[in-house]
Amino acid sequence: MNINVRVAVKKDMPEIFDLIKELAVFEKEPHAVSITVEDLENYGFGNHPKFHCFVADVDGKVKAMALVYMRFSTWKGPILHLEDLVVKQDMRGHGLGTALLDEVVKYGNELDVKRVSWEVIDWNEPAIEFYEKKGADVKRDWDVVHLDEDGIKNYLSKL
Amino acid sequence: MNINVRVAVKKDMPEIFDLIKELAVFEKEPHAVSITVEDLENYGFGNHPKFHCFVADVDGKVKAMALVYMRFSTWKGPILHLEDLVVKQDMRGHGLGTALLDEVVKYGNELDVKRVSWEVIDWNEPAIEFYEKKGADVKRDWDVVHLDEDGIKNYLSKL
Repeated sequence: MNINVRVAVKKDMPEIFDLIKELAVFEKEPHAVSITVEDLENYGFGNHPKFHCFVADVDGKVKAMALVYMRFSTWKGPILHLEDLVVKQDMRGHGLGTALLDEVVKYGNELDVKRVSWEVIDWNEPAIEFYEKKGADVKRDWDVVHLDEDGIKNYLSKL
Repeated sequence: MNINVRVAVKKDMPEIFDLIKELAVFEKEPHAVSITVEDLENYGFGNHPKFHCFVADVDGKVKAMALVYMRFSTWKGPILHLEDLVVKQDMRGHGLGTALLDEVVKYGNELDVKRVSWEVIDWNEPAIEFYEKKGADVKRDWDVVHLDEDGIKNYLSKL
C-alpha cells in the first residue's frame, strides 16, 4: 500500500466533498451538508483562500483529508484550527488519520501558532482516546454554540 | 448613561487587553494570558488583520468588547466566530452584552455567513440561558480540544 500525504489541490475537491458527506453520515446529520463542490473550489483556491487542506492518497486515490484554517485566541495569539479530519470507512486503522494529524501539527509549528485546536463529539470515545494519547487536552467543560442561518434571520427580526 | 457601540480602533487595544485579562480571571485562568497589547495592535491592524473587534463605550470609556473572525464550516461555508464577549464587572446588567451580540449578528448577516458560532463554559448558566433565549443552539455533546504550545513541541518530538 502506497500512502502519500500532500497538500490538496483544486481538482481534489470532488473527493473531499465525498469525505465531508461521509463524515456527516457518521455524525448522524446526513442532511446538514449544504456546501457544494464548486463552493469548496471557490473558497479554498481564490485570492484569499478560506482554508488549507491536506489529503492522504492511497495508490493514487484520496482516502483521507484534514482541513485547517487560522483562528485567533485573545489569550495566546494565532491558532491553527483543524475543522475536519476524515478517513474513508474502508481505510480506517491504516494510520491515515495519524499521518494527517502529524502533518497538521507540523504545519502549525511552521506557522508558529500558539495552539492547534479542534472539536470532538463526546460519544466518539476512540477519537477522544486517540487525541489524549497524543497529548491534547479535551475540554469537556467547554461547549460549542451555533446560531445558524435561520437563527440569524430570526434574531435580527426581533431587533 | 451614554452607550456607544462602534468598531474598535488600534488605540483601544490597551483597554481591550484589560477586558481580556478580566475574562481570564473570571474563567479562573488568570495566568493563561500570554498575549500583549502590542500583539493585539499588530495582529488586529496590519495588512491582514486576524480579527475584527467591536466595543461598547460608556461615557467615552470602553466598558465591553466583542472580538470576531471568520471560520469555515465544511458543511455550510463561511462562519463568523465570536471569540470573546466581555463586559466589565461594574457594568454588567446594563445591556452592553446584548448590544454587542446584536452588532455581531448584524455583522455576520452583512457578511452573508451561514452561522455565527462561539464557545461557552458549561458552568456559566446565566450565559447559556441568555444565548438559548436568543435562539442559539448550545451543543453540549461537542467538546473543544486544545493542543497547546508545549503539546505541539512534545508531539513533534515523538515523530
